Amino acid sequence: MVRWEPNGRGRLAQAAMELYGERGFDQTTVADIAERAGLTERTFFRHFSDKREVLFSGAQALQELLVDTVVNAPDLATPMDAVALALEAAGSLFNEHRDFSVQRQRIIEGSTELQERELIKLSSLAVALAEALRQRGVGDPTAGLTGEVAIALFKISFERWVSSSEPSDLTQVLRDSLEQLRVVTATT
Amino acid sequence: MVRWEPNGRGRLAQAAMELYGERGFDQTTVADIAERAGLTERTFFRHFSDKREVLFSGAQALQELLVDTVVNAPDLATPMDAVALALEAAGSLFNEHRDFSVQRQRIIEGSTELQERELIKLSSLAVALAEALRQRGVGDPTAGLTGEVAIALFKISFERWVSSSEPSDLTQVLRDSLEQLRVVTATT
Repeated sequence: MVRWEPNGRGRLAQAAMELYGERGFDQTTVADIAERAGLTERTFFRHFSDKREVLFSGAQALQELLVDTVVNAPDLATPMDAVALALEAAGSLFNEHRDFSVQRQRIIEGSTELQERELIKLSSLAVALAEALRQRGVGDPTAGLTGEVAIALFKISFERWVSSSEPSDLTQVLRDSLEQLRVVTATT
Repeated sequence: MVRWEPNGRGRLAQAAMELYGERGFDQTTVADIAERAGLTERTFFRHFSDKREVLFSGAQALQELLVDTVVNAPDLATPMDAVALALEAAGSLFNEHRDFSVQRQRIIEGSTELQERELIKLSSLAVALAEALRQRGVGDPTAGLTGEVAIALFKISFERWVSSSEPSDLTQVLRDSLEQLRVVTATT
């Protein structure tokens, strides 16, 4: 018999984040998380496939947001305009979860396994953005290059955003980074 | 007693690459590699720390080449000029080892573990390039951004280079990608 647990997923996620922060990701077990949340391991595995999943469960939604924004960008938008719109949409989403993002970044930086997983996810996002550009009729190498560079912009902007002591607007940091990119690539 | 084995390292590397190509990386053991090379496992571990090392032993030399080229670029070189020189130096180095690079890429694409390792290495190169730019007096966010974008350019150019059916010049592919980046970032 499956007991209904009010907001089980949220309680488990919060317990996991607390423990990863206190002990480190590697030193935390699913049993620890379940205990802290006052739930069972079975309940944990009904919500998450493993303990990494707590940190990466948003990846699919992020990818869909990026891809949808690129695909639906105005017809006249250049490839870089289209990915800039996508990055700004992602920026707005992350702005609503800054505390979680800061906490998550600290946890990821403490574990090589998590860093590798994060880089694989970012790499998939670059591939997905390139594919979305191709759906708009953008050819290669432009599509592949723009996808890869967009993710480089996102990575560097996200790192600046989570490490700034004052809460700031990620969409603005992304716009600044794109402007900076234009400056550094301008021929002299 | 340590027996002297003529070119043990080269023979082991060749045997490893053959086996990774034939069976896949995951299905190859150090014992298999030693046997194919006609050497012992002990000899393998005198040359390589593990079986991944065969594929990543060039990473340190690559990083030094990139960093040295940035640090020693002409005083008047812009940050992007300095990293472009570094990428071209790397391009010349890889041009001499195209067959190995093609073979290595195919092996890496067949293993998630190796893809993760490759992304971590690329990420370290971005950090090292940014640090080399700071040594030239380049401030942030320009240094961090330029390092990250340079590696995005390298990644996309390298993938194009190893997947082209005709042997081509990696330094030229890198120059084309940089030109392409200038086009996609140009404001309309």
